[in-house]
Amino acid sequence: MKNTFGNSVSVTLFGESHGEAIGAVIDGIAPGVKVDEDFINHQLSLRRPTGNISTARKEQDPFKIVSGVVSGVTTGTPICIVIPNSDTRSSDYADMAFLPRPSHADYAAYCKYHGFEDRRGGGHFSGRITAALVAAGAIAIDALKQKGIVIGTHIKKCAGIEDAAFSDYQRDIAALNEKFFATLSEEAAEQMQKNIKAAAAEGDSVGGILETAVLGVDAGVGEPWFDTMEGVLSHALFSVPAVKGIEFGGGFALCDMRGSKSNDPLCYENGNVKFLSNNSGGINGGITNGDTIIFRLAIKPTPTIGIEQNTVNIQTKEDEKLSARGRHDPCIVHRARVVADSVTALALLDILSLRYGTDWLVK
Amino acid sequence: MKNTFGNSVSVTLFGESHGEAIGAVIDGIAPGVKVDEDFINHQLSLRRPTGNISTARKEQDPFKIVSGVVSGVTTGTPICIVIPNSDTRSSDYADMAFLPRPSHADYAAYCKYHGFEDRRGGGHFSGRITAALVAAGAIAIDALKQKGIVIGTHIKKCAGIEDAAFSDYQRDIAALNEKFFATLSEEAAEQMQKNIKAAAAEGDSVGGILETAVLGVDAGVGEPWFDTMEGVLSHALFSVPAVKGIEFGGGFALCDMRGSKSNDPLCYENGNVKFLSNNSGGINGGITNGDTIIFRLAIKPTPTIGIEQNTVNIQTKEDEKLSARGRHDPCIVHRARVVADSVTALALLDILSLRYGTDWLVK
Amino acid sequence: MKNTFGNSVSVTLFGESHGEAIGAVIDGIAPGVKVDEDFINHQLSLRRPTGNISTARKEQDPFKIVSGVVSGVTTGTPICIVIPNSDTRSSDYADMAFLPRPSHADYAAYCKYHGFEDRRGGGHFSGRITAALVAAGAIAIDALKQKGIVIGTHIKKCAGIEDAAFSDYQRDIAALNEKFFATLSEEAAEQMQKNIKAAAAEGDSVGGILETAVLGVDAGVGEPWFDTMEGVLSHALFSVPAVKGIEFGGGFALCDMRGSKSNDPLCYENGNVKFLSNNSGGINGGITNGDTIIFRLAIKPTPTIGIEQNTVNIQTKEDEKLSARGRHDPCIVHRARVVADSVTALALLDILSLRYGTDWLVK
Amino acid sequence: MKNTFGNSVSVTLFGESHGEAIGAVIDGIAPGVKVDEDFINHQLSLRRPTGNISTARKEQDPFKIVSGVVSGVTTGTPICIVIPNSDTRSSDYADMAFLPRPSHADYAAYCKYHGFEDRRGGGHFSGRITAALVAAGAIAIDALKQKGIVIGTHIKKCAGIEDAAFSDYQRDIAALNEKFFATLSEEAAEQMQKNIKAAAAEGDSVGGILETAVLGVDAGVGEPWFDTMEGVLSHALFSVPAVKGIEFGGGFALCDMRGSKSNDPLCYENGNVKFLSNNSGGINGGITNGDTIIFRLAIKPTPTIGIEQNTVNIQTKEDEKLSARGRHDPCIVHRARVVADSVTALALLDILSLRYGTDWLVK
Repeated sequence: MKNTFGNSVSVTLFGESHGEAIGAVIDGIAPGVKVDEDFINHQLSLRRPTGNISTARKEQDPFKIVSGVVSGVTTGTPICIVIPNSDTRSSDYADMAFLPRPSHADYAAYCKYHGFEDRRGGGHFSGRITAALVAAGAIAIDALKQKGIVIGTHIKKCAGIEDAAFSDYQRDIAALNEKFFATLSEEAAEQMQKNIKAAAAEGDSVGGILETAVLGVDAGVGEPWFDTMEGVLSHALFSVPAVKGIEFGGGFALCDMRGSKSNDPLCYENGNVKFLSNNSGGINGGITNGDTIIFRLAIKPTPTIGIEQNTVNIQTKEDEKLSARGRHDPCIVHRARVVADSVTALALLDILSLRYGTDWLVK
Repeated sequence: MKNTFGNSVSVTLFGESHGEAIGAVIDGIAPGVKVDEDFINHQLSLRRPTGNISTARKEQDPFKIVSGVVSGVTTGTPICIVIPNSDTRSSDYADMAFLPRPSHADYAAYCKYHGFEDRRGGGHFSGRITAALVAAGAIAIDALKQKGIVIGTHIKKCAGIEDAAFSDYQRDIAALNEKFFATLSEEAAEQMQKNIKAAAAEGDSVGGILETAVLGVDAGVGEPWFDTMEGVLSHALFSVPAVKGIEFGGGFALCDMRGSKSNDPLCYENGNVKFLSNNSGGINGGITNGDTIIFRLAIKPTPTIGIEQNTVNIQTKEDEKLSARGRHDPCIVHRARVVADSVTALALLDILSLRYGTDWLVK
Repeated sequence: MKNTFGNSVSVTLFGESHGEAIGAVIDGIAPGVKVDEDFINHQLSLRRPTGNISTARKEQDPFKIVSGVVSGVTTGTPICIVIPNSDTRSSDYADMAFLPRPSHADYAAYCKYHGFEDRRGGGHFSGRITAALVAAGAIAIDALKQKGIVIGTHIKKCAGIEDAAFSDYQRDIAALNEKFFATLSEEAAEQMQKNIKAAAAEGDSVGGILETAVLGVDAGVGEPWFDTMEGVLSHALFSVPAVKGIEFGGGFALCDMRGSKSNDPLCYENGNVKFLSNNSGGINGGITNGDTIIFRLAIKPTPTIGIEQNTVNIQTKEDEKLSARGRHDPCIVHRARVVADSVTALALLDILSLRYGTDWLVK
Repeated sequence: MKNTFGNSVSVTLFGESHGEAIGAVIDGIAPGVKVDEDFINHQLSLRRPTGNISTARKEQDPFKIVSGVVSGVTTGTPICIVIPNSDTRSSDYADMAFLPRPSHADYAAYCKYHGFEDRRGGGHFSGRITAALVAAGAIAIDALKQKGIVIGTHIKKCAGIEDAAFSDYQRDIAALNEKFFATLSEEAAEQMQKNIKAAAAEGDSVGGILETAVLGVDAGVGEPWFDTMEGVLSHALFSVPAVKGIEFGGGFALCDMRGSKSNDPLCYENGNVKFLSNNSGGINGGITNGDTIIFRLAIKPTPTIGIEQNTVNIQTKEDEKLSARGRHDPCIVHRARVVADSVTALALLDILSLRYGTDWLVK
């Protein structure tokens, strides 16, 4: 299925950074779901490069919903969102066309597409495409919210600085979803941004860790083999640019625990099963257990940097040096946050619609 | 698709721990591929509980290929492998039937299947099912080998002990694939097993980290969005029991690096593009770059332990204590290794057949 | 997905005519659904060659459900049904191995599988495989019945003889589902069988038309493009052996009508929308309209005949004559009936589970 | 997957008749394939309502390829084609909004989408959407042609008049593909159009039969069960508006033949296997045999007619009379032709790419 994800509710991405337009088609969302263009704009603003810790490329992302929505409500048929491109300065990339940027998709894409790929501005691999993903995701986030499912992500770590931990999921998530630089601690945010600027000043870049919490998914969702909840979410989440790892609940730290410590004991609380800890991240045997779904994404440093690097010229077949020009981000962790939320929402909407039926959102 | 994985080459699992039989159907493997039953037996022996660091359940795994193979060669039609169950002692589990084991699938499965799930011995969630996965995976591993693709996994960490690092992939993988307890350092293996026994003696369990290397996959395989190489592999690999995290290349450690350090520079070596480091784990932008594919899996401690834990009785709706009886493993990291290799091989076979065509294996 | 069908509820077939066993895996059926082995046996008996109008191969089809069912009730995990093969007389086919039977799969299979296909008894292409499909379908038919959905098929035409038309769907279907040679008119049945025997006496074979009615599917099921109700049913139904055509409602006869005649007018009857005719076969725009779903399948004459035919020897590359020996049917229309019902039930179960959710059957 | 078709090469449709735009996304086409906008325009002109036998709605279909193509060549990433809507006169439909047109999708769509569907001009069910399908199909047709695969369709029957039969496939197809009203006999075309006008004059409509031939597909393509060549093509082809039946090769007429007559004998001709007849329509056992693929589609009369019909008012729940206003076609058989070719090409491109690999088109 390639650039499409989902069985019951699917999303398909298209577009290149410097092409005519980018966009997404979402298919399978129930009819009668409210589509709030203000919320889409809000989400897009969280992704948009802003201030002095982002690329100088200014995008307005004036999206247009060309199908599937009438009078602000879904019709039930495919929703196509188109975002025209503008402010593209391809010349920045012209002389880099045959010099693959280390750890960027350039070389792998060249091998896959035999040189026919659109190399301008990263083409189909550009972070720019995530604007369409965020617009689509906004519809999914909003729809899930109406079923009591909320998603929130904070920058758990960035440029060497740790954020505070979640203390009250509902309240923390509400606060995070209003922030452009989404941390739970203001001090951490300031220090992270200071460090990002320091790296940027040296022509360098930094990475970080995002931590996502999902509230409100009932126990019993996911499959035992292959279509496990972790497997399906991971499948989708590796499309968040620069993600190189994912862990659920205790994740890699579980390796250093014993079972008596890592296991999550159960108890009854007001007649409901509760867990005394959540090292499982809300998932056991591939299936939700009703606790908060928790996962973390490792985001590598932005590969495009100003510092000179070794690379090759795939045309002359000679070694070369590359100092990236063009507008690029010294850090994309904070911008990747809303992409992670969007992908999570789209994947969950698919899994839940598969379980509860296509009209589930409006029942 | 639930308990099926793959588009061009697919695998479907069936069976319960204490049912009639378990098995797998593999569909889409090219005709004319040699199926080596000795190699399947070898792989099964690597998964089979052995010695005093495993469950005392003795399984002979006498698999039967009931279709799709004639005279040791694939016909091109679906291959069904059936492994009858035997030596099942359901009574061990009878009194635990309504006491979900903490961090095991029991409670989540109960919520999903409304109590109709087969609870005997973990039912469809039992590690036992992985015998079928390993048998199916053996066919895939063997087939890939004939195309120059080899897969090897070592126990990078277990019970607090670190293994040595890969030094020569080809040679290391060859050695690992003969071992039941697959480490690169013999000392590490001994210390790990000592620690496993120590935990077992206390009725406890331990976890670890598996690290897998895949050699021989050409550059250019994978998709930019959604069906990224990382995404598809992750999707499948969360079916390896107890996996709670996956990272590629530098993984989570990349978060503490700067781009100038994490990026993998390129150069020419004898006319071929090479990378001076492999923090990308052989994948950029979701697409292979021709370098070794590297990933690590976080394996949590076995949830079934002898130590008393808090749980609930889902029938009486009261809090309870549970000390697991039944035969269980104090550690499954070493046994999960061959499952990880199997899943990796099946997923790669699918992705590569999609890219190169269904007869690729025999061209 | 090849030999697998369905997204929410899927079925995978495996096996060869003269191999170890044939079988099917059904995945995605809700937990708590009753599985009636007597009904499976009943359905298998309707498919089984019987009397002097069928092949002399006697099969007992002693199926075994090896997973997914405990105490006669589905667990919700994959159901694997295995039917061992017996009474296989491969020698009948030995001397025909390189002489593809005209209009049989032999030559196409040889091209696809490069000679590695199991040619004994038709291998994976044998009608024998449909026993597994019928067993799987029986579970689906039974499950749908409990939701008020019933499926019935009559031999509308066979060996030149027309059957009577449906007059009372509920009553007619109940009667048909008890018959081995399922016609609405007894006279038609007798004449058809007489003609089949006449053809058989000459070493020849005949075909026919099956007509299926499905009652109880609500309006609103199906998709406007691609996953239309007609499209999905057709996709599955071309797996009924020897089917070369399908038409819904008025079908090909609509081509000779004008719209004023072919359109189905609507009216209210006791507050419910009814249609005054059913040329649409219960489907408009790819979506059910609540009326009876009606379709017809064209079944070609059995290709394996005793009469001498021209063919080639793919080994010597010379033209040859072929008079089929082996046991074969002069007509499979009556046996294909229960296969059509089975496929219909499996496809509908998938489509409806996708629409209403995976637990729909037990809600 | 709903409004998406295909696994290796997929197409997704979006848009409503009177919305902002319609369009299609094609994903999976190899990089380096020439995209000829003139040919797309040519194909669109064959679908466009023209002359006095079509709706008076004039569409210019000024499509825009917004992604996936650079300098007239595919990049290998998703191709999105957008066709803005214009000349929409929704008022024509306003007073019909709650009066479902008999045998149109109106009522079924209302049941599926609970009244949220876009009813203006047929919304997502409008034949208008096929413009996007034709544009996408044009790319597929062109690509297949470069691999020696050609597709041609003639109006075999319309308004009671039969066309001549194919006599020389290559030449006939070349001629048909230049015609707006695609018959093999000019006399038949004239008589058909005369009859269409006669029906139109009475406010009525007519249907017909399309017959398609596909040359150049090698033997060995398709799967034995479920993903049969007939099954996959049918799945897609029921998306050609108004199709109510499909038959391959001899189709329904085979039912009246005996096997000795319907079987296609084989022989050698210059060292290649040939068939002495083609009642199989180029497919046996679900797999191509190398002969011409032949199928026929039953196209029902256009449901929207001027003649008064019985229907209901779904709002007032009363019976009503309806005489359709708005612009509508008395016949869509001739326009459906190019849609059938487009769908066939897209489905074949998917099946063949699955078999031969994603870069097959450029190898």
